[in-house]
Amino acid sequence: MASKVVDIHTHVYPPQYVSILKSRSKVPYVRDTTPGQPSRLIILPGEDDPSSETTAKGRPIGPEYYDIAKKIEFMDTHGIDISVISLANPWLDFLDRDEAKGLARDVNDAINSMCDAHPGRLFAFGALPLSAPSEVIVEEIHRLPTLKYTRGIIMGTSGLGNGLDDPELDPVYQALEEENMTIFLHPHYGLPKEVFGPRAAYYGHVLPLALGFPLETTIAVTRMILSGVFDRFPKLNVLLAHSGGTLPFLAGRLESCILHDAHYSGPAAKVESRRSVWDILKTNILLDAVVYSELGVRAAATASGADRVLFGTDHPFFPPLEPAEGEEQEQKWLSVTTNYKAIREAFGPEKEQAEAVLGGNAIRLLRLTTD
Amino acid sequence: MASKVVDIHTHVYPPQYVSILKSRSKVPYVRDTTPGQPSRLIILPGEDDPSSETTAKGRPIGPEYYDIAKKIEFMDTHGIDISVISLANPWLDFLDRDEAKGLARDVNDAINSMCDAHPGRLFAFGALPLSAPSEVIVEEIHRLPTLKYTRGIIMGTSGLGNGLDDPELDPVYQALEEENMTIFLHPHYGLPKEVFGPRAAYYGHVLPLALGFPLETTIAVTRMILSGVFDRFPKLNVLLAHSGGTLPFLAGRLESCILHDAHYSGPAAKVESRRSVWDILKTNILLDAVVYSELGVRAAATASGADRVLFGTDHPFFPPLEPAEGEEQEQKWLSVTTNYKAIREAFGPEKEQAEAVLGGNAIRLLRLTTD
Repeated sequence: MASKVVDIHTHVYPPQYVSILKSRSKVPYVRDTTPGQPSRLIILPGEDDPSSETTAKGRPIGPEYYDIAKKIEFMDTHGIDISVISLANPWLDFLDRDEAKGLARDVNDAINSMCDAHPGRLFAFGALPLSAPSEVIVEEIHRLPTLKYTRGIIMGTSGLGNGLDDPELDPVYQALEEENMTIFLHPHYGLPKEVFGPRAAYYGHVLPLALGFPLETTIAVTRMILSGVFDRFPKLNVLLAHSGGTLPFLAGRLESCILHDAHYSGPAAKVESRRSVWDILKTNILLDAVVYSELGVRAAATASGADRVLFGTDHPFFPPLEPAEGEEQEQKWLSVTTNYKAIREAFGPEKEQAEAVLGGNAIRLLRLTTD
Repeated sequence: MASKVVDIHTHVYPPQYVSILKSRSKVPYVRDTTPGQPSRLIILPGEDDPSSETTAKGRPIGPEYYDIAKKIEFMDTHGIDISVISLANPWLDFLDRDEAKGLARDVNDAINSMCDAHPGRLFAFGALPLSAPSEVIVEEIHRLPTLKYTRGIIMGTSGLGNGLDDPELDPVYQALEEENMTIFLHPHYGLPKEVFGPRAAYYGHVLPLALGFPLETTIAVTRMILSGVFDRFPKLNVLLAHSGGTLPFLAGRLESCILHDAHYSGPAAKVESRRSVWDILKTNILLDAVVYSELGVRAAATASGADRVLFGTDHPFFPPLEPAEGEEQEQKWLSVTTNYKAIREAFGPEKEQAEAVLGGNAIRLLRLTTD
């Protein structure tokens, strides 16, 4: 039997979520801007600057964003057996305190129902009502195991508003650890636009997406490490988007800076009994393989172990560069084939490792069976 | 003959530069804060916040920062044959327009004289008067070849104040290309402190140094790539500090985002005739090996080629964790031994590649002979 291919980084906006985006007048929102053209999704901070002439003004969206049949079609085209779907950014972060609880339930139920309609093909990461009071968040976490296909939650970097090193998040981490629910940590907010300089708009989405996103993830998980989240919750599992942002590459420097700062005196010495960055990478961190290069996959596998790196596509983002020739014929996406190729080349003759990254690791670590 | 070891990332503050820092009352400055204790160097933006209780309030400095005899001692202790010394950050960035020209000449002459006092052991990267008018900067570049030991210049990420993708820098890049002077691109400004969140001060220097520095470098060189600097100056050589910040790891994502953004329409399509990120990495970029991990060295060597990665120490930063036992006995620095070990392990049985990274590449690429 050929081993299975599992995509653990693949997003969906359920129809009721799209309705909310359509009803909104500020970011995030969906708008029909030009008659006859697809609706545009404007989700990134600052993307709706009316003076901007760049491609940064959102992106066109079609049914691949909300119609689960399109996901299945995409999976079939690319030889993907199972997808672990997750709500795309910005999740529920922008909701008012009072509406968050209900909408989180609705969205988590809706995504679980999508899985139920395609048994064995789909599993899910839920979303948390992070703008609601802490006890509401914890209650939703304890409800997740009742959803047959849900194996974790997807979350951005803002937490309750003060980042993921906020001690107020401890009850949330504790509940997630208790329920063995993996956190899929995903960027959205990027970096303040001034870091990209006065000419950033000329480069379209490139700087915020290529750099802002992975740098945001790296900062967020580093703050978790430094604040001792993994010391307090040693069984917490965190799956990092885009192969950890840049964490595998910077782990050595991070470990060195922690050691040297503890020396200078001051509060950093508190972390003397801490676990090393390398230990956390190999114990608590899972990395997707959405890094678009062989060297990236190898670095990720060295950092966390080839048994903790998981194939993903980032569908429906990064669609084909050119429209399909014939409408009938689904074409392969360059973004996906680039990542497939990177995995196959990264492990050379160690084909078993490549197969594990392509699917076996996800099935084992996320318990992707319904027995 | 054993192959030589060359350290291309090693800093010095000449005494006249330290005098300037001592005369200043705002960052950057040097201050004697506590009687009997070493002077403290406060160079990072925000480091002198009086409310801060952390180790982020500068660092103690001794003669290893300004006495070249200490550099030679350090080299001998660590088996380093040749060092290419450079002014440490923030270089001349903070000078008034009128004083920059004279001080650049003084500093470049002083550093060249240090090399002259230890023939064959020391070479130099100069510094540019970037706050002076463009013609003054260009004039200083054309003077550099008259300094026997100078092989390039060290520069931060702000350029003339608007970053390294500023078209006003073209005459500077052109002069550097003409004189075959390598740019050593080095971070200093980090990222705005809000990206590190409300608890950043508890972590000492860790977030700005471990993440802020490499992320700053990555953004700066990416802006150079996107603005076409390497298309207009195809022979320009840029040595990136800290193995490129995170560029090797993110190169695949960057290339993918450029391809996908050009598709959406808009000005990014202008870059259609551009050179790929991978091509620029292998042609114009040199990477130091100051990355503190085997996986980092391997990623750097894959990205730019094992013939374009160069050993460095970052001396006198990251000193030993504990004071030496006996005062006579120079001890080895953990930060240095970590990088040595990473290089030796990265290439396994390919000892020639390790030797090239340790010294041969620098001698060839920076012309470290005085014939």
